[in-house]
Amino acid sequence: MATIDKNSVGIAATRSVRVVQADAPLELSCGKSLGPIDVAYETYGELNDAGDNAILICHALSGDAHAAGYHSSEETKAGWWDNMIGPGKGIDTNKYFVICSNFLGGCSGTTGPSSINPATSRPYGLEFPIITIGDMVKVQKLLLDKLEIRQLLAVIGGSIGGMQVLQWAIEYPDFVRAAIPIATTTHLGAQSVAFDAVGRNAILADADFAGGQYHGGKGPDRGLAIARMIGHITYLSEQGMREKFGRELRSAAEYSYDFNSEFAVETYLDYQGRSFVERFDANSYLYITKASDYFDPAKDYGSLRQAFAEVRSRFLVVSFASDWLFTPAQSREIVDALVANRKDVSFCNIDSPYGHDAFLLELDVLGAFIAGFLTATHRPGLGAGEKKPTDSAAAATPIENAFRTRVDYELIESLIEPGSTVLDIGCGDGELLARLTEDKDIKPEGIELSQKLVSACVARGLPIIQHDIEDGLAGYADKNFDYVILSQTVQTVRNPQKVFDELLRVGKKVVVSFPNFAHWRSRAHLFFGGKAPVTEQLPFGWHDSPNIHFLSLRDFDEFCRGLAVTVEKKIPLSKRRLRPVRFMPNLFAEQAVYVTSRSQAFGLKETYRREAEDG
Amino acid sequence: MATIDKNSVGIAATRSVRVVQADAPLELSCGKSLGPIDVAYETYGELNDAGDNAILICHALSGDAHAAGYHSSEETKAGWWDNMIGPGKGIDTNKYFVICSNFLGGCSGTTGPSSINPATSRPYGLEFPIITIGDMVKVQKLLLDKLEIRQLLAVIGGSIGGMQVLQWAIEYPDFVRAAIPIATTTHLGAQSVAFDAVGRNAILADADFAGGQYHGGKGPDRGLAIARMIGHITYLSEQGMREKFGRELRSAAEYSYDFNSEFAVETYLDYQGRSFVERFDANSYLYITKASDYFDPAKDYGSLRQAFAEVRSRFLVVSFASDWLFTPAQSREIVDALVANRKDVSFCNIDSPYGHDAFLLELDVLGAFIAGFLTATHRPGLGAGEKKPTDSAAAATPIENAFRTRVDYELIESLIEPGSTVLDIGCGDGELLARLTEDKDIKPEGIELSQKLVSACVARGLPIIQHDIEDGLAGYADKNFDYVILSQTVQTVRNPQKVFDELLRVGKKVVVSFPNFAHWRSRAHLFFGGKAPVTEQLPFGWHDSPNIHFLSLRDFDEFCRGLAVTVEKKIPLSKRRLRPVRFMPNLFAEQAVYVTSRSQAFGLKETYRREAEDG
Repeated sequence: MATIDKNSVGIAATRSVRVVQADAPLELSCGKSLGPIDVAYETYGELNDAGDNAILICHALSGDAHAAGYHSSEETKAGWWDNMIGPGKGIDTNKYFVICSNFLGGCSGTTGPSSINPATSRPYGLEFPIITIGDMVKVQKLLLDKLEIRQLLAVIGGSIGGMQVLQWAIEYPDFVRAAIPIATTTHLGAQSVAFDAVGRNAILADADFAGGQYHGGKGPDRGLAIARMIGHITYLSEQGMREKFGRELRSAAEYSYDFNSEFAVETYLDYQGRSFVERFDANSYLYITKASDYFDPAKDYGSLRQAFAEVRSRFLVVSFASDWLFTPAQSREIVDALVANRKDVSFCNIDSPYGHDAFLLELDVLGAFIAGFLTATHRPGLGAGEKKPTDSAAAATPIENAFRTRVDYELIESLIEPGSTVLDIGCGDGELLARLTEDKDIKPEGIELSQKLVSACVARGLPIIQHDIEDGLAGYADKNFDYVILSQTVQTVRNPQKVFDELLRVGKKVVVSFPNFAHWRSRAHLFFGGKAPVTEQLPFGWHDSPNIHFLSLRDFDEFCRGLAVTVEKKIPLSKRRLRPVRFMPNLFAEQAVYVTSRSQAFGLKETYRREAEDG
Repeated sequence: MATIDKNSVGIAATRSVRVVQADAPLELSCGKSLGPIDVAYETYGELNDAGDNAILICHALSGDAHAAGYHSSEETKAGWWDNMIGPGKGIDTNKYFVICSNFLGGCSGTTGPSSINPATSRPYGLEFPIITIGDMVKVQKLLLDKLEIRQLLAVIGGSIGGMQVLQWAIEYPDFVRAAIPIATTTHLGAQSVAFDAVGRNAILADADFAGGQYHGGKGPDRGLAIARMIGHITYLSEQGMREKFGRELRSAAEYSYDFNSEFAVETYLDYQGRSFVERFDANSYLYITKASDYFDPAKDYGSLRQAFAEVRSRFLVVSFASDWLFTPAQSREIVDALVANRKDVSFCNIDSPYGHDAFLLELDVLGAFIAGFLTATHRPGLGAGEKKPTDSAAAATPIENAFRTRVDYELIESLIEPGSTVLDIGCGDGELLARLTEDKDIKPEGIELSQKLVSACVARGLPIIQHDIEDGLAGYADKNFDYVILSQTVQTVRNPQKVFDELLRVGKKVVVSFPNFAHWRSRAHLFFGGKAPVTEQLPFGWHDSPNIHFLSLRDFDEFCRGLAVTVEKKIPLSKRRLRPVRFMPNLFAEQAVYVTSRSQAFGLKETYRREAEDG
């Protein structure tokens, strides 16, 4: 027997409950009704007395209710997300009550096309109505009602599971406190629809499909295997496949010169196809992929922005860099629509070679994100406290630390009005935002490039989006924030003017700090030494500096004049004192903090002018 | 009837010739023999008296001998590469004699699995021997022998056609003057093998396949259509499909809630599958994809470098940025192996959204590259002359022009020994290399990032590789060049030390020129003006400068000392005079040219030292 380790939820049983009776069928999106509906589900952990620790897990295409633990002590293979769910794991069953159910249309206990149609007393087959992600979520809600769950701390799922998460947040805004859609999309693109269609074609073209009534017969095993093989290629990345299989031959060193599978990748796919056929129903494959093709809240609500207009949950959106089925760009569409609605959203695009499958494999990184986000949602106070400053400092690189000059932080804090909305660009581990939240009760948002620092911000409970400021801020409305902060960063971006224009567009006021390149030490360095300045404030050689632009207070003044920017405050600073440098600041200030703004009218006029020039 | 325009080759007939007789069969790679072999081919243009203008076109999976023109005045669809081949087109039939043949194993006139097996008097089916790209090329060579072609000016082909091009260059080094492999690879990666395998599975799993003896029967149309659909998805890019189809529905505004094709991309694939089945043979699909899976000259020769060791043709390697079937990285492997063998190779990764299919669609850009390369190969003198300097100057951006300060070119030219091998990094339109080739009889190679400038160099007959120097020079051997030139570029790269290390590795001498940041005007600008320098030599503002590092002569001296670089010559210059600045050069020189070097031993020692530190 398998030894069940102490981090496992242990023996778990799949239970079944009838959520829709035959005499009161459920009305589906397609207009037809369905009943009875039974749901297979498992639970792990305990619902607490407050009833505020319930988490729903939504599975993907080939998953089932068995997300964690073992069905018996003889079983060697644990549930499909066992490394994520358990005592002390990313979704900690010591803290949370976790529910996972097989979705409607599935073939692992919940009513689906292989269930008996009461009207004919034989399996539904193609008589099963077309279902949608919305229908799946309705059935999950009925299950939670049966279990007397009044609110979910979180809904979490990857791929098609992530679609259900989005549907939950949209349809039941008051029921869901946190939504964690992973490696998913609000709509399949043409390429993914195409792959799904070819897979369904392979099943439908199989002579043994028998119009869906193959039960008792041979069944469309060859077609289903082909569909699975196609799917499997899309779940892996090209890099992942190359590294795993390359051009390795299964057994011989030389080609066999026949049509048998001989490359290792071929026999791998054969195995995937074969084993899938043993555990999955071809009709379910048709129905689930169709539901996935149909998912499109933007179509349902007029636009994605309108779809998310009423959501109330916090969001943690996660994508994986090498996922080409549901791409990082598709996750960004979710984030941008939430941002446009000013919702509480965090986003990370996790660096991984495992493609779409990464949501089943990158469990350490993903688990840390989920754990931090759940804690910060469940116990906000604790969340911020649990993360010690040393943890986040450890995550910062030396260069990042070099910029974290405390004196400009202190000064910036003094400039922010209490209760403001604040966006911090390159917010690092979120220290400044956390201080401002604590001291000034601001509504914080952060943008940061480093995955580690994003994770630290998530654990702090800060809404944080992983993003390169050079790519602009298209998702944000004009004058979205009272303050935008760009601390010690303007000199490191490739296109300062483009970045600055964007900040002035989305922020009523933009607070900028930068090192003064015309400080007397720098001037002397070049003038007398004939060398590019290396000083305490600019501590890098000419060739290894992250600073790729050099500017003085005077340069920035002129820059602002040229861009029709109002300089509301200009505070030249030394490195260590909060007191402004008043005497010849361009010579004696080591850094400066500016508060700038530009009227909304400028942006419009400027746009018109540019269009006129183009025309 | 269709109006045949004057740029068409007009009416073209497919002819057939027996190249292998039944009694003298051809020995194939798999060890079996095959005969008789008939070849279907077309020709366009005229072979000239010198016999030096013949070009062979190799087609891809679903192509045939009918590459250009029309079979009759009633035909509305021209040959598959008609926009590339014709009077005045990229492959100009006024200048060249163009041959295209259906390859061995095909189903459009050349012997293949649907031909009659003389041993059984029925179609071969699966009794046809497994063939390779090498076998295809052997048969093409037999055709050219029949046509009394003694040498090819060029072999050109995309995709599987590109594999044949590579095979030609490797197997018949003296027969091919120029090889133009487009959107191809020396070996399919695991992902592409997987897609091929699934496609073959779909055919083999079709109940109507009948072990390959389906002739006269229904045939595996459904399987072949599925294979074609899978293939078609891989020929387009995700972006291309998104832009072409999006989530558009074929006819209705609302979902049909059934399993009929309803998304536009589904009906498009249905059409592609259906029309393919009408014109293509399922067995040929099996044999051709297998030949493509097997293609792997690195396996045949021990390594890719060894495979290319004896090639003698000039190479123009072309990839397309959005091609994810045969990726730009795979084309780079070809380029790197040729570079390692010091072959004459040019490379461009054409920016296109059309994925793998771009070789059939991006005909303007591709045609210009091919035309320039063919001219430069066919009439080298003319090639250089045909391209007027104004053309290439027009291709350069203002910033590029700003760097082309003639005085450092003149000086650099004076430093190069006649007959040297020279690599020019960021060579622009190739002016310096062309001058050096003309005046000093050097062996030139260039590296350039801009597609337009690469095209200008190709037309000049210069070996030019599109490449970002920041990515290093891994393909080049140590001390590969007598001189490497880095003119007015060191201050614009992100990581000057890494770049400089690479140049010193591949070049015996490295010639560097850069603007002097410590010129008195710059110093004065900062010292007295308190602003980042904007001078004639550094004509950009702090925020819009392409210069992201600032260095003086003294900075560079120290930099060289720190990296154990020998400064062989140091020539401070003013902007306009060739005479060196001798008095206080760090103050009075506007720019400088250095000749530097580093002994090979340093690199080794350095490597050992770094490894020791890592350990």
